[in-house]
Amino acid sequence: MNNFSWQCPTKLILGKDTIDQVASEIKALGCSRVLMVYGSGSIKRNGIYDKTAKSLNDAGLYFKELSGVEPNPHYDLVLKGVELVKANDLDFILAVGGGSVIDTAKAISAGALVDSLDTFFEDCFLGGKPVTAVMKKGAILTIPAAGSEMSNSCVITNTKTGFKRGINTFLNYPQFAILDPTACYSLPAYQTACGCADILAHMQERYFSNTTDTYFSDLVLEASMKAIIELGPRCMENPTDYDLRAQIMFIGSMAHNNLLGACRTQDWASHWLEHELSTQYNVAHGAGLAIIFPAWMRYVHKANPRRFIDFFSNSMNLKREAGEDEEAFIERGIKALEAWYQSMGLPIRLTQIGAKDDRDFELMATRALSGNRTKAGNLMKLDHDDLVAIYRLAL
Amino acid sequence: MNNFSWQCPTKLILGKDTIDQVASEIKALGCSRVLMVYGSGSIKRNGIYDKTAKSLNDAGLYFKELSGVEPNPHYDLVLKGVELVKANDLDFILAVGGGSVIDTAKAISAGALVDSLDTFFEDCFLGGKPVTAVMKKGAILTIPAAGSEMSNSCVITNTKTGFKRGINTFLNYPQFAILDPTACYSLPAYQTACGCADILAHMQERYFSNTTDTYFSDLVLEASMKAIIELGPRCMENPTDYDLRAQIMFIGSMAHNNLLGACRTQDWASHWLEHELSTQYNVAHGAGLAIIFPAWMRYVHKANPRRFIDFFSNSMNLKREAGEDEEAFIERGIKALEAWYQSMGLPIRLTQIGAKDDRDFELMATRALSGNRTKAGNLMKLDHDDLVAIYRLAL
Repeated sequence: MNNFSWQCPTKLILGKDTIDQVASEIKALGCSRVLMVYGSGSIKRNGIYDKTAKSLNDAGLYFKELSGVEPNPHYDLVLKGVELVKANDLDFILAVGGGSVIDTAKAISAGALVDSLDTFFEDCFLGGKPVTAVMKKGAILTIPAAGSEMSNSCVITNTKTGFKRGINTFLNYPQFAILDPTACYSLPAYQTACGCADILAHMQERYFSNTTDTYFSDLVLEASMKAIIELGPRCMENPTDYDLRAQIMFIGSMAHNNLLGACRTQDWASHWLEHELSTQYNVAHGAGLAIIFPAWMRYVHKANPRRFIDFFSNSMNLKREAGEDEEAFIERGIKALEAWYQSMGLPIRLTQIGAKDDRDFELMATRALSGNRTKAGNLMKLDHDDLVAIYRLAL
Repeated sequence: MNNFSWQCPTKLILGKDTIDQVASEIKALGCSRVLMVYGSGSIKRNGIYDKTAKSLNDAGLYFKELSGVEPNPHYDLVLKGVELVKANDLDFILAVGGGSVIDTAKAISAGALVDSLDTFFEDCFLGGKPVTAVMKKGAILTIPAAGSEMSNSCVITNTKTGFKRGINTFLNYPQFAILDPTACYSLPAYQTACGCADILAHMQERYFSNTTDTYFSDLVLEASMKAIIELGPRCMENPTDYDLRAQIMFIGSMAHNNLLGACRTQDWASHWLEHELSTQYNVAHGAGLAIIFPAWMRYVHKANPRRFIDFFSNSMNLKREAGEDEEAFIERGIKALEAWYQSMGLPIRLTQIGAKDDRDFELMATRALSGNRTKAGNLMKLDHDDLVAIYRLAL
C-alpha cells in the first residue's frame, strides 16, 4: 500500500430540487458576479437553464453567459471566457453541464489569474507549470461521466496544435457540485452510455495496479465497478428512474475524486490512448474508452493476470469454469465487457468510428507520448510501439 | 435514496514517516502557537511524542501541552485546555492520540471561542445550540477506532452530571489527519480489538437502514465491513504488519467521515445504548459496542430482515443453508458476529464488564433518552422500554 495524501474539499449536493440552492451556495462563498458556462443549449430545452437563472436572479446575483462548449472542449472558448471575466469583473465561474463544460470552467478559473495568458496552454497544459491561483467555481452537473465536478483535473483540446491535455491541481476542485438526478432524464441514450463507460474507466484506471496489500481498496473498487456495471444498462432501459439516475450520478463523482485510487499506483494508459482517438476521429470520450479498454486489456493482462481475474469475477460476476485456464477466462471476460459496452449501444472497434486502416496510429502514438511524457501506464509501461500495437488491436 | 449534502474537508495523510510533516501542515494553515493534546503518556514511550515535538521544534513552532486525556474523555480537561489556549494565546490545537484525545481537542477548539464557557456543555452538548466558530485543529492518529480524525462529531463525558454527549458540526472536521501505521505497532491488543469493533459499528449504524434504492451505497458498505471483519483478526495476530495497520487506519477514517452513510437514513441506537454502558461501567467504547450490537440485532432484526441477511451473506461470507429459514440464518449470523468479537478478546455480555443484574437499566435508558431525545434509532424506533429490553438481552 502506497503512502498517500487525499483531500477533496468539494461540497457534494445530491438530490431532487437542489438546483434551487445554487445562488445561496455562491453567496455563502462571498461571490456575487457569475460567469455561467454551458454547452449547446440543451439546458434551455430541459428547464435547467431556467431553474439556474431563476435562483441567481431571485438572489440578485449578476451573471454573464458563455455558451457553446463542445465535447472535447476547445481552448479558444477558454480564452473567450477569460475575456468575459476580465471585461465584466466577475468573481465566480458556474458550470452548468457535463465534464466538458466543467473543464472549461476550471480552465477559465485558472486562466483568468495567470500572469501570461498568451502562453497559458504551453506553460500549464503542455509544460506542467503549476497553477498557483484560481477563481472560485461551482458546478451544476447534467451528465454523469467525467467526474470533473469533484475532481482535480481538467482536460482541454487546443485545436490549433491538435493537443488534448490536462492540468491536475488541488485548485481545480469546484467549491460545490450540485447533482439533481432529474436533470439527466432528457439525456440522449448515447450520452448516458458514454457516461457509464467513462465512470467505469475512471475506476478501472485505478484498479488495474501492481500495488500490493490493498485489500480494502480492492474490495471497494470492485463493489463500485459492479454497481455501475449493473445499474448502467438498467438506466438505459429506464431513463427517468430517479434512483437509477441518482446512484449513477453518485458513482460518477466517487469514481474520480481519487479516494478510490488514493493508496494505489494508477494506470491511465487507456485515457492517454483515448485522448488521441477523440482528437483524431472526434469521438465522444466514453465511446473511445469502450474501444480502447478491451484492446488495452488484451495487450497488458499478462503483466498481472490476477487483477483481471478478480475484476471479471468480482465486478462482472463471471465464474471461472472447471478446467478453464487463466488466459481463456480473461478472454471470456474481455468479451463480456465488450458485450456490456455493446448492450448500451457503444462501439468497440475503431472501424466503427471512421478508421479505415492503421494510417493514423503512428501519429497518434507520437502525440500521446509528446511533451514531457516518455511511457504510458503503470501496470505495464508502454512505449510508442506498444501504443501502436494497442491501436491495431482495436481496429 | 435520500437527498444529501456531503463535504469532508480534512486532508488525510497516510503513510510511513508522515508525522515528520506535522509542522509544515500547521504552518501552511497560518498557525504557529500550538496546544498539543495527548493521553496517558504512551506516546512518550513509543516515540510519537518525540517525533511530533521534533517536527514542531525544528520548525520553530511554540507549543504547550495538555496531557491526561482518558477514555470517555472528561469535560473537566476540556475546560483546562481552554484555559491554556487563552492564557498562552495559542492558535492551533494538535491532538496526538485516538478518538478521546481528538474529541477533547475538538471540544477545546469550540470552547475557546464560545461566548459563555460556563454553560458550554449545557448549551451545546445537551441543548443542541449550534457552534458557530472554532479554532483550527489537526490530528496525529495513534488508535484507529473512533474515526474522529475525519469526522464532524465529538463526544465528551461530564462526570459531574453523568452525561456523555456529542456535538456534530461541520466545524468539527480537523484541517488534517496524519496516519502513520507504525504508530499502531505498540497498541495493546485490547485497544486494537476495541478499535475494530468501533470501526465496524460506524458502518453498521449506517448500513442498517430502511432507505431503499441504495444499491451502490449498500455494496460499498458491505465491501468495507467485509474488509474490517477480515483484516481485524489478522492484525491481532500480526500487530506489526505495516499493511494491515495501514488498511485498518484507512478503513477507520472512511467508516466515519459519513461518505458511506450520505444517502441513507442512519440508525445510531447502538451508540446511544453504548454511551450509557461506558458511563455506568467505565467500559471501553468498542467493547461496549461488542456487547450491544448482538443484543440490538436480536431485538430489531424483524423490522428489516433483508438487511441482516445481506450483511451476514456479503460482509461475513455466511451462506444460507438449504431449508434454513430467515430467522435461523440471522441468529446464526449474530452468533458468528459474537464469535468474531470474542476471537479478538472482546466481551459480548454485560456480566463480563461488571453488571450483576438489571438494576441499572432503567436509569441508563432514561439517560439515553434525556435532553432533546425522544426515541433511539431509525431501522426500528426505540422507546424507553425497548432500550431496557435490549440491555436485558445483553446481560
